[in-house]
Amino acid sequence: MATQGQVITCKAAVAWEPNKPLTIEDVQVAPPQSGEVRIKILFTALCHTDAYTWGGKDPEGLFPCILGHEAAGIVESVGEGVTDVQPGDHVIPCYQAECRECKFCKSGKTNLCGKVRAATGVGIMMSDRKSRFSINGKPIYHFMGTSTFSQYTVVHDVSVAKIDPNAPLEKVCLLGCGVPTGLGAVWNTAKVEAGSIVAIFGLGSVGLAVAEGAKTAGASRVIGIDIDSKKFDTAKKFGVTEFINPKDHDKPIQQVIVDLTDGGVDYSFECIGNVSVMRSALECCHKGWGTSVIVGVAASGQEISTCPFQLVTGRVWKGTAFGGFKSRSQVPWLVEKYLKKEIKVDEYITHNLTLGEINKAFDLLHEGGCLRCVLAMDGLCKF
Amino acid sequence: MATQGQVITCKAAVAWEPNKPLTIEDVQVAPPQSGEVRIKILFTALCHTDAYTWGGKDPEGLFPCILGHEAAGIVESVGEGVTDVQPGDHVIPCYQAECRECKFCKSGKTNLCGKVRAATGVGIMMSDRKSRFSINGKPIYHFMGTSTFSQYTVVHDVSVAKIDPNAPLEKVCLLGCGVPTGLGAVWNTAKVEAGSIVAIFGLGSVGLAVAEGAKTAGASRVIGIDIDSKKFDTAKKFGVTEFINPKDHDKPIQQVIVDLTDGGVDYSFECIGNVSVMRSALECCHKGWGTSVIVGVAASGQEISTCPFQLVTGRVWKGTAFGGFKSRSQVPWLVEKYLKKEIKVDEYITHNLTLGEINKAFDLLHEGGCLRCVLAMDGLCKF
Ligand SMILES: NC(=O)c1ccc[n+]([C@@H]2O[C@H](COP(=O)([O-])OP(=O)(O)OC[C@H]3O[C@@H](n4cnc5c(N)ncnc54)[C@H](O)[C@@H]3O)[C@@H](O)[C@H]2O)c1
Ligand SMILES: NC(=O)c1ccc[n+]([C@@H]2O[C@H](COP(=O)([O-])OP(=O)(O)OC[C@H]3O[C@@H](n4cnc5c(N)ncnc54)[C@H](O)[C@@H]3O)[C@@H](O)[C@H]2O)c1
Ligand SMILES: [Zn+2]
Ligand SMILES: [Zn+2]
Ligand SMILES: [Zn+2]
Ligand SMILES: [Zn+2]
Repeated sequence: MATQGQVITCKAAVAWEPNKPLTIEDVQVAPPQSGEVRIKILFTALCHTDAYTWGGKDPEGLFPCILGHEAAGIVESVGEGVTDVQPGDHVIPCYQAECRECKFCKSGKTNLCGKVRAATGVGIMMSDRKSRFSINGKPIYHFMGTSTFSQYTVVHDVSVAKIDPNAPLEKVCLLGCGVPTGLGAVWNTAKVEAGSIVAIFGLGSVGLAVAEGAKTAGASRVIGIDIDSKKFDTAKKFGVTEFINPKDHDKPIQQVIVDLTDGGVDYSFECIGNVSVMRSALECCHKGWGTSVIVGVAASGQEISTCPFQLVTGRVWKGTAFGGFKSRSQVPWLVEKYLKKEIKVDEYITHNLTLGEINKAFDLLHEGGCLRCVLAMDGLCKF
Repeated sequence: MATQGQVITCKAAVAWEPNKPLTIEDVQVAPPQSGEVRIKILFTALCHTDAYTWGGKDPEGLFPCILGHEAAGIVESVGEGVTDVQPGDHVIPCYQAECRECKFCKSGKTNLCGKVRAATGVGIMMSDRKSRFSINGKPIYHFMGTSTFSQYTVVHDVSVAKIDPNAPLEKVCLLGCGVPTGLGAVWNTAKVEAGSIVAIFGLGSVGLAVAEGAKTAGASRVIGIDIDSKKFDTAKKFGVTEFINPKDHDKPIQQVIVDLTDGGVDYSFECIGNVSVMRSALECCHKGWGTSVIVGVAASGQEISTCPFQLVTGRVWKGTAFGGFKSRSQVPWLVEKYLKKEIKVDEYITHNLTLGEINKAFDLLHEGGCLRCVLAMDGLCKF
């Protein structure tokens, strides 16, 4: 390609300071170094983690930065030593790397690869501990090792999942975060069995993906809990069989659920990020075996608590990151499942906008009616 | 037997009020009703749960009562419909029943049988919701469905494990609580694999049994943590390979352990009952897979807490009751293992006293040098 080895100047949404509207800038994207891949991002969605960092709630958030981590695109060029992908490959950048070599990858027990974390955690690339983004020479930090709110981004090769080129990128970009998180929480972390009773707290995209995962796992009852009753109609389509709005009850929600289920649920999932709901989710579990999985991300500094007797009498408290999926190995498999119509993706997309409308997309994220908003990176941008 | 169907008057240690010394009384023990077994207790040990209730710390503790739940004896007579044991059988009364019929027993996922809990939790027997103990007509409550601080006790048939008559009752009485709890926490609840790094907080009987369990499971390192450095010599004999006294360190103990183990342990066990240590035990676990098991019983009303990120990044928080062992099925198996010298029991017994010396035995429980004190129920009693 003509751009290979060159600095590319393209449009990106830059977060200069917490809570200040993003601005679309001309950004210089350096060529990929050894072990790196430069990707032309075609579509990106927004997720709560972007809003969380942008909102200044992440004490480790670094500014200025380019946010974004749920996207799909095409490899533009690769750095030295990169063999798994080549220019033209359709890919999903993955904030959770998979190197297949580190202690974590080799353990077989977790998807939390440690290979590039020391760099991605502080907004830079491993090889030279520098950023590939700059504006007139001023570096702009990377975010989560993905920075997909840019028309071009550079990522580590261990963070790139190569997918079937037949997959529509404007849809499968969602397989970069929320949908796999929910499905994997059920399939990998909780390992829900057929016949189980499941409770899901929070029916946003992640909670709905949990519902779909529970349905495919053969759950006998899927109880959805949300303070917004409007969520129920959509939730039914994803597999929720019963709905509870905590506002309709005087009793603590865990008691309501225990009463409804003859002692509690087999599995519960917190998909909100609220520490008091995390406690309810644990305590609505059945004595002896009930397992609760924390999926939501709480504000920094907040703590969960419960009576230790809850655990001594057999409940299990867990959590999940990216649903326990090994990104490079399993995102392509999820894409195949989507193409075979075995998992939903289109149904989560409630809004389509362009990169230029990204601030509107952030506003939508906080509105009940929005599940996922997908931004087109080129085309009708209102720059 | 001559006593069958008769009220038996025998000696028992009665707790009249919280914290008041127990007194040895002549107690009337009614014959077993349908589904009940009357046992001549020959040896009983003391455990912290006895001290906990006696100390008034259990809000559900009922007085006057007969405490005790770690014992062995011989069946004196059985009530109607009891088929699994008969007079003369050597048995261990089990505070954790196993009916093989209830939802819990059938689940295959837990040992927490629910069959007689509604009665044992409130100090009475199921059939007529009355006590079998009385003193001059005044009823005395049962405790944990066992009440082994009496020369004769009545228990539900689902709470009796029939054991090999060749086993020395003065030793295997310990298989009624503490030793199985520690072994089972490792084998059943955590399922420690060969090569694992294990941390044990608290090196009393329960912690030492965890150490032995970890050793037999093939753990590569067994780190013992206790504020009493005198515990280390004994602990070595049970399999502890390294010892840490938190008092020797300025850093939080979880940090000390993470540093010592290149990221944390694979499994940790809290065997103290201290909620702040429970947090340390979770947080010293390795990211991605470390599992912490709460074994200790905390004071009522106390809560555990941590940052939810600990769980989202792959740690698992669990607990165990009676080590997950199914009592009637597995206590006899533990007795066999003891007879084949595959598990220790004798080594936990540091003191031998008589029922008449029970208050002295309670004092010993709070002294560092005592692991288990076994009381002979007859013989040289100082009544
Ligand atoms: N662990 C991971 O790897 C991972 C990955 C992606 C997202 N997340 C997190 O998952 C969470 C959910 O993401 P989402 O995109 O579905 O969010 P969302 O905002 O779309 O959905 C949250 C839902 O919870 C409901 N809710 C809010 N407070 C509630 C309460 N007190 N009781 C009941 N319902 C309540 C809201 O009405 C909403 O429907 C977020 O915290 C996000 O950061 C975690
Ligand atoms: N879950 C169950 O089914 C079950 C069954 C039996 C006993 N238990 C509980 O297990 C616990 C242990 O029983 P045990 O008989 O071994 O008790 P123990 O008192 O003999 O042992 C406790 C040990 O912890 C040490 N310790 C105290 N505070 C400490 C601290 N802050 N840091 C490090 N070490 C500390 C003490 O020095 C002692 O060696 C008790 O809470 C008991 O109630 C639970
Ligand atoms: Zn996300
Ligand atoms: Zn790795
Ligand atoms: Zn005990
Ligand atoms: Zn049962």
